Amino acid sequence: MTQPATAAFLDRLAAALPSGTLRSRRPGELEDPRGRYHGQAAVIACPGRVEEVSTVVRMCHEAGVGVVPLGGGTGLVLGQVAYDGPAPVILSLERMTAIRAVYASENVIIAEAGAILTDVQAAAAEANRLFPLSLASEGSCRIGGNLATNAGGLNVLRYGNARDLCLGLEAVMPDGSIWHGLKRLRKDNTGYDLRNLLIGAEGTLGVITAASLRLFPRPDHAAAAVFVVSSPQAALELLAMAQAMIGDGISAFELMSGMGFAFLSETMPDLRQPFETPPEWCVLIDLGLSGVSDPEERLSALFEAGSAAGLVSDGVLSQNEVQRQAFWALRENIPEANRRIGSISSHDISIPLSRIPEFIPEGIERLGKIADIRVNCFGHLGDGNLHYNAFPAKGRSRAEYENVRGAVKACVHDLVAEYDGSISAEHGVGRLKMEDLERYGDPVKLATMRAIKAALDPKGIMNPGAVLRQIDDQFE
Amino acid sequence: MTQPATAAFLDRLAAALPSGTLRSRRPGELEDPRGRYHGQAAVIACPGRVEEVSTVVRMCHEAGVGVVPLGGGTGLVLGQVAYDGPAPVILSLERMTAIRAVYASENVIIAEAGAILTDVQAAAAEANRLFPLSLASEGSCRIGGNLATNAGGLNVLRYGNARDLCLGLEAVMPDGSIWHGLKRLRKDNTGYDLRNLLIGAEGTLGVITAASLRLFPRPDHAAAAVFVVSSPQAALELLAMAQAMIGDGISAFELMSGMGFAFLSETMPDLRQPFETPPEWCVLIDLGLSGVSDPEERLSALFEAGSAAGLVSDGVLSQNEVQRQAFWALRENIPEANRRIGSISSHDISIPLSRIPEFIPEGIERLGKIADIRVNCFGHLGDGNLHYNAFPAKGRSRAEYENVRGAVKACVHDLVAEYDGSISAEHGVGRLKMEDLERYGDPVKLATMRAIKAALDPKGIMNPGAVLRQIDDQFE
Repeated sequence: MTQPATAAFLDRLAAALPSGTLRSRRPGELEDPRGRYHGQAAVIACPGRVEEVSTVVRMCHEAGVGVVPLGGGTGLVLGQVAYDGPAPVILSLERMTAIRAVYASENVIIAEAGAILTDVQAAAAEANRLFPLSLASEGSCRIGGNLATNAGGLNVLRYGNARDLCLGLEAVMPDGSIWHGLKRLRKDNTGYDLRNLLIGAEGTLGVITAASLRLFPRPDHAAAAVFVVSSPQAALELLAMAQAMIGDGISAFELMSGMGFAFLSETMPDLRQPFETPPEWCVLIDLGLSGVSDPEERLSALFEAGSAAGLVSDGVLSQNEVQRQAFWALRENIPEANRRIGSISSHDISIPLSRIPEFIPEGIERLGKIADIRVNCFGHLGDGNLHYNAFPAKGRSRAEYENVRGAVKACVHDLVAEYDGSISAEHGVGRLKMEDLERYGDPVKLATMRAIKAALDPKGIMNPGAVLRQIDDQFE
Repeated sequence: MTQPATAAFLDRLAAALPSGTLRSRRPGELEDPRGRYHGQAAVIACPGRVEEVSTVVRMCHEAGVGVVPLGGGTGLVLGQVAYDGPAPVILSLERMTAIRAVYASENVIIAEAGAILTDVQAAAAEANRLFPLSLASEGSCRIGGNLATNAGGLNVLRYGNARDLCLGLEAVMPDGSIWHGLKRLRKDNTGYDLRNLLIGAEGTLGVITAASLRLFPRPDHAAAAVFVVSSPQAALELLAMAQAMIGDGISAFELMSGMGFAFLSETMPDLRQPFETPPEWCVLIDLGLSGVSDPEERLSALFEAGSAAGLVSDGVLSQNEVQRQAFWALRENIPEANRRIGSISSHDISIPLSRIPEFIPEGIERLGKIADIRVNCFGHLGDGNLHYNAFPAKGRSRAEYENVRGAVKACVHDLVAEYDGSISAEHGVGRLKMEDLERYGDPVKLATMRAIKAALDPKGIMNPGAVLRQIDDQFE
């Protein structure tokens, strides 16, 4: 267990840092985005340089005080919300927001961990390049947090996770030492993959302070379509057809359900929907192509082939960027509609692609045995990543389901385990899923994780209680 | 330091395994491919199942005996050649060659570690899919070795390294425990990235026994071109132009030098070369496209644009698959020509893309101060990965350069370090570059690697002496 940060310790910390580096918390800060948990802070440290990050971590290491790195605070699994144990030092990257360099000819950008995701995207665009990471919270999340949680989002099918977009890191290790690993190389086989170990470790093995990231040529032409499909199985067959016909140009392939459209009608009656009768299932396909290719033409050809094969029964194609954005607005409003309905339990899961058609109805059937539940299943079908969220029956409130919430979550996660899927596809483990990880994780992997944590952070100061149970607690 | 494998130990090992699992070495086995080092073996264990691998590793762990995993034995950095210390148990994956499953609709294949790379490619092709990893030794290297070394090869620009092609692993950890991590998910954020930690660890943190790997749609049409460019700078500008015009369809972008063509003329006078006067620099571009796109047309357009911009002065385009293969034969014969000439020292390096044009001549100039040396610089330009190899002057032999070999290597690697490059882009560290890693590696990364090694393999039995100095030796 970590030590409390005493007044004397905080005085020493303040004295070791430029004045103004420490601040107290602002109202509402350190709440989790879903509003259920409240984070603690002995103080909030806002270093401006990696050397100051090193000072904070080294002094906390010496004193055994916990350090919780903070990016944009948008994480959904309480990775940044230390609601338990001695109040830690919150290490906010909010002042380390520089874009240190853009190497357009190398397709590389170097950003500090506190850079807001949209600012990284904008810096890339200014150099006529694309930084493809894109997710709902992009206007406030920070790139360090995106990397710490290996964020996914909308373009993973084509460009990969945050992990796949990172070439190198600068990071402060749990003893305060600085790893200068900001390489901008595509190939570098010199030793263990420390980069990928820190990515996805959610701040428990060190603090990412800067990253060198991959950029891409901006596709010349983009277009989107919404196709009505008869079932998730048909959606998957259409995906395979699209990949064979269009190759690498598919940027996103998103599933939406009739329940999603019903939620949109219920909560945003003024939002224009593309089909008079909400379809039971449809997919949003986004293409980005370069050179002579015409994405509308490709989508038309896919529509024809999909119709001929009996996979697609209706569809709309964007004729311009405004229409394309309107299709995306549909997809992006679903999480907001979900919030307004109020979920009983939300699940960020992935399933082997070919088993998704079985999984979706089986989950609905099992949940139906627990209570009268509506499931809105949507998400990144191309990645096998579903948001499989459980809601109250129409006219009832989530409060009425409080007593079945645990059973709902266990039902979904048990089924995911039976299907050899993942209980956290893109949000991470944080504190919310730490016990689930113990329950569903491979025991040898867990033992290896604990050994690595103990070796690199023997006092357990880095984001204590996130991902892994605190070391002392393991023996309680 | 590991313990010798006593006769009693080997008897116990034999008794614990199905009969026929242990064998003695075959003539010539365990030599390094360049013929300079000779590996030792107490015995060669050839388990047929992961549980038998576990038995071998667990018993070696208990006895403190070294275990050296062996794939195809084609590695160039002595990762598989234990020429020093007590003779270890060689753990050959040669009997674990099964393709366990192909999930064509998921674009996933599960192969055992001993599967030969071409057999994995063939199993993918049979399902009308592409497994894109491709390298010179593909007919004899094994997928477990490809992953252990994070192999690169010809298609990294488009499809990534071995690391990027792997979704999950089954592995035996240094204590003999089995990690069942053969997930076939694109997204899985449940804890530390053990997969990427084992990939590239060259068998020092465990033995990979099977992998789940990504497949891709097979491009419908392929075509290649060889374009003469005025300089490496022009080659890089042409690459940027190609990426903007053609997008993701570029499978390979390889640099060849006039020296390479001279070596081909010198050692393979019957090989037909595409240009009457060997160009000083040229690039081989390979395209694979799907759907309506015509790769020859794209290459023609690129040739015109490149010529108009003054980047390309001559070129040949494949009109059919035979011609495409002939272009590739040129590129693939360069390493064989190099072998026939006999290098003084070979360097598998990567350099930030935009600095390559400075690096190439500066290295030649510096090497010229050491001796009369010919440099054949070629390789995967699109990845920033050069094979920057030093050869004797025409008519002289490598033996005459024996006394400058160390200086040649240090000269190239020092320059690589100055340019913030990598001294091992795709071949790994093994035993050959262990000291170079100590010299050029980031000290914090090295300390972290040692801490991880000590935590997961406290007796240092896994591939002792590879990548990291043996633990006892660190204090000598």
